[in-house]
Amino acid sequence: MPDRAAGQVPAKIRSLGKVHHVALIVRDLDGTLRFWRDTLGLPVDLVLPIETDRVTIAFLPVGESKVELVMPTDDTTGVARFLASKGEGFHHVCFEVENLAETLTRLELDGLELIDTAPRRGAEGPVAFIHPRSCHGVLVELIEAPGGPAWAALGF
Amino acid sequence: MPDRAAGQVPAKIRSLGKVHHVALIVRDLDGTLRFWRDTLGLPVDLVLPIETDRVTIAFLPVGESKVELVMPTDDTTGVARFLASKGEGFHHVCFEVENLAETLTRLELDGLELIDTAPRRGAEGPVAFIHPRSCHGVLVELIEAPGGPAWAALGF
Repeated sequence: MPDRAAGQVPAKIRSLGKVHHVALIVRDLDGTLRFWRDTLGLPVDLVLPIETDRVTIAFLPVGESKVELVMPTDDTTGVARFLASKGEGFHHVCFEVENLAETLTRLELDGLELIDTAPRRGAEGPVAFIHPRSCHGVLVELIEAPGGPAWAALGF
Repeated sequence: MPDRAAGQVPAKIRSLGKVHHVALIVRDLDGTLRFWRDTLGLPVDLVLPIETDRVTIAFLPVGESKVELVMPTDDTTGVARFLASKGEGFHHVCFEVENLAETLTRLELDGLELIDTAPRRGAEGPVAFIHPRSCHGVLVELIEAPGGPAWAALGF
C-alpha cells in the first residue's frame, strides 16, 4: 500500500466520522430484543423486514451509534450461513464517512479489497463493505453521512 | 429473566450511555495501525503495554467512541488463545454506564452470567465483562462514565 502522507489526502475522503452501528447476527430477534431492549435498556428505533436481503433487522440507538440486530429469515444468504457456521455474535462494524464514492476510490487505490466498489442502497443510506481480508479480520461497512452526494444519486 | 417494566428500574442502572469502544484482537500492532491510522485516518490516542495482562493496546478515537486494538505479547492469555484459534478480528464491544456496581447487581438479579461481579480496574476506568452466553454470542464490557462512584473506590 502506498506510503502517503496524511496531509496529501483531503479530510473528507480520509476521516471516519463516528461508529454508525455495530451489527450482530441473531437467531431469534424477539429473544435477542429481550436482552438488548429489556435487560440493557436500549430503545428500539426500527424493526424492518428486508425481503430482498431475506433478513429482519432492528436498530437500537446508543449515544451517537446504534446496535443493529440482523436475523436471517431463510437459509439461503451469507448471513444465514454465518449464523449456521459461527452461531450468534458480532458481524460487522459500520463507520460514517462524508463522501463514500471518493472514499472508496481512495481505498481501492490504497490496495484494499472492496466488496462494493461503489455506494449501494442500505437500510439507512448509501453503504459499501470492505473485505475482512483487508481489515485484519474485521468486516467493515462504510455509510455516507446524511446529505452526502450519494444520497441523491441513489434516490434517497 | 424477570419480566420487569422499564419504569421500575432507575435510569442510572439501566441505560447505556454510548459505545465506549469496539475491541479488536490483532497479531501485529504496527501492521494493524497501518490500516486503522494510515489508511482509514483515525488518530492514535494511546499505545500502552499492559504488562500484567500480557497485551499491548492502542486506542483510536472515532466520534464519541474508540477502536481498541489488542495485541497479545505472549501465548499464555485468553486473548492469545483467541488469536491462535480464531485469528484476528472482533473481540468485544464496551458500553458506558453511569453506575457500574449497581448495574452489575441488577444484571445479576436479572439472571445474567457476569465474568466480573464487581467493578475492576481497566485501562480507562472501572470495567466489568458479561459472558457471551448471556449476550447472544457477544462479549460485552461495561465501563463506568468518568466521575462515577467506582472511580474513587478503585483509586483512579
